[in-house]
Amino acid sequence: MRIVVLAGGIGGARFLRGLKAAAPDADLTVIGNTGDDIHLFGLKVCPDLDTVMYTLGGGINEEQGWGRTDETFRVKEELAAYGVGPEWFGLGDRDFATHIVRTQMLGAGYPLSAVTEALCARWKPGVRLLPMTDDRVETHVAITEPDSDSAAGSGERKAVHFQEYWVRLRASVPAHAVVPVGADQAKPAPGVLEAIAEADVVLFPPSNPVVSIGTILAVPGIREAIADAGVPVVGLSPIVGDAPVRGMADKVLAAVGVEATAAAVARHYGSGLLDGWLVDSVDADAVAEVEAAGIRCRAVPLMMTDLDATTAMVREALAMAEEVRA
Amino acid sequence: MRIVVLAGGIGGARFLRGLKAAAPDADLTVIGNTGDDIHLFGLKVCPDLDTVMYTLGGGINEEQGWGRTDETFRVKEELAAYGVGPEWFGLGDRDFATHIVRTQMLGAGYPLSAVTEALCARWKPGVRLLPMTDDRVETHVAITEPDSDSAAGSGERKAVHFQEYWVRLRASVPAHAVVPVGADQAKPAPGVLEAIAEADVVLFPPSNPVVSIGTILAVPGIREAIADAGVPVVGLSPIVGDAPVRGMADKVLAAVGVEATAAAVARHYGSGLLDGWLVDSVDADAVAEVEAAGIRCRAVPLMMTDLDATTAMVREALAMAEEVRA
Repeated sequence: MRIVVLAGGIGGARFLRGLKAAAPDADLTVIGNTGDDIHLFGLKVCPDLDTVMYTLGGGINEEQGWGRTDETFRVKEELAAYGVGPEWFGLGDRDFATHIVRTQMLGAGYPLSAVTEALCARWKPGVRLLPMTDDRVETHVAITEPDSDSAAGSGERKAVHFQEYWVRLRASVPAHAVVPVGADQAKPAPGVLEAIAEADVVLFPPSNPVVSIGTILAVPGIREAIADAGVPVVGLSPIVGDAPVRGMADKVLAAVGVEATAAAVARHYGSGLLDGWLVDSVDADAVAEVEAAGIRCRAVPLMMTDLDATTAMVREALAMAEEVRA
Repeated sequence: MRIVVLAGGIGGARFLRGLKAAAPDADLTVIGNTGDDIHLFGLKVCPDLDTVMYTLGGGINEEQGWGRTDETFRVKEELAAYGVGPEWFGLGDRDFATHIVRTQMLGAGYPLSAVTEALCARWKPGVRLLPMTDDRVETHVAITEPDSDSAAGSGERKAVHFQEYWVRLRASVPAHAVVPVGADQAKPAPGVLEAIAEADVVLFPPSNPVVSIGTILAVPGIREAIADAGVPVVGLSPIVGDAPVRGMADKVLAAVGVEATAAAVARHYGSGLLDGWLVDSVDADAVAEVEAAGIRCRAVPLMMTDLDATTAMVREALAMAEEVRA
């Protein structure tokens, strides 16, 4: 069975670990979000691709869900001693090596997809990891900059890089808009459309529907390829009980005018894209609303508390895919 | 008093520490060799500039004479795990930060002289440190590649980067030629010619006469400016008792057809450039030969065993400069 998964960072990576356990013989292609990518210290950092690679390759810091295990921060401390920041982005020494290799290869002319393949030659994630595009896409967030007088922000309105909004500001100020800058000019990376066309199932993990999966779908051709693939497309709600399971998805959902509910996210993707949708058991009330929108729906436990729970959740998604197919 | 010093790495840096002690009120400008610079992992590494900066700024690894104190090697270990080398060049985590900042600034368009000034804003070396040039110069060494059957090397003849010859091969194979590639097209960095023109004294520390001071002098305009400055130019022999005090200067002297003796190095610089030359006490026999070449000479202790010995040595050089002037 060939399965294509659209993935953001932590949630996507943990979901994939469950998928590998649930379908050990499946051929897995992951289309990773690169809208979170950022240039720091002259180096190209791809947080979502690295989180998938480190998680599946056994190098992740399990507690925090991103970055390398057994990490140190000597380089960052020295950069700070030079007065060079930002200090709010946590790049560890081991992690730096990844960005150095990537930047050197990009500088030598390799596209990001080839670089990602080279990095994965070390990590052996057990999936084919493709960036959504080799072109530059950078998610920007229009915010009202916080000032010293108000936590809600009453300062200047401006656009910041997604990482600045997410990591520096902890999504603590209103997001007026989320724009994947460059997405409209981007082309899917080599292999992306082919993998979708050859897939037996397409899965949307409980990743952020705006800045992760939404960004991938913003690359012209990807949404259309999924809609036209003629295979079951099943997603899992990142919203449980009207709040994001992790992260701050509610903040960016508000920016695109979508309620932070399991049903609203399903309707946001829409029946033109989604065939099936899993909501958490606590959101059983949402099932009827989702099905009324033309999307098959079921309420099952969606908390990825451990590998067993995640694997069970993935099995529900695969079972729903089979129902859709039948 | 304004003193200009041409400096390589370890020897030059230790000499400068003595100079700061011997002439605490002097205005010191150091013209640093950049022919040793190398691009590693896509980063610009300037070993000689960094050795001067770290040594005078209190960040040097005192035992080895280069690199940072209290260093770790996590980044390098990770690069090796990616199969990315070279492994023979010892870049530590703290050191990496310097190269990352430098590379980022160069990429943003700053010339190396401006970058060096910015790095020195942190280290406060107490001297004005100028690269010899902002242009790319890279010292290459023509060697016979060693093969597995012969330590002397009986393989292919080829040119390698100076660092490969010096660090990887430990100068263990014959050097047929030493070429500062790009030097003939290079321009002195801003401030270099001005500092020489305004100097009261020019000093050549016991740095390598071929690959350190020789490379600086190969930048068109620098040798002429020193010769025309009309101020005392005094050097100190890096050869003591027919062997280099440290390093492998004899190997590269052979490549340029110069005997590894204190007198031969003085004649190599020549009386058109040098006014005075200090040889070690064990080389007292060389004094007459050097003076016969038209260069004032004296035999004094030249081993930089500690700061006191180095300071005493510098005082001898400054005293000789006063004699030349008088």
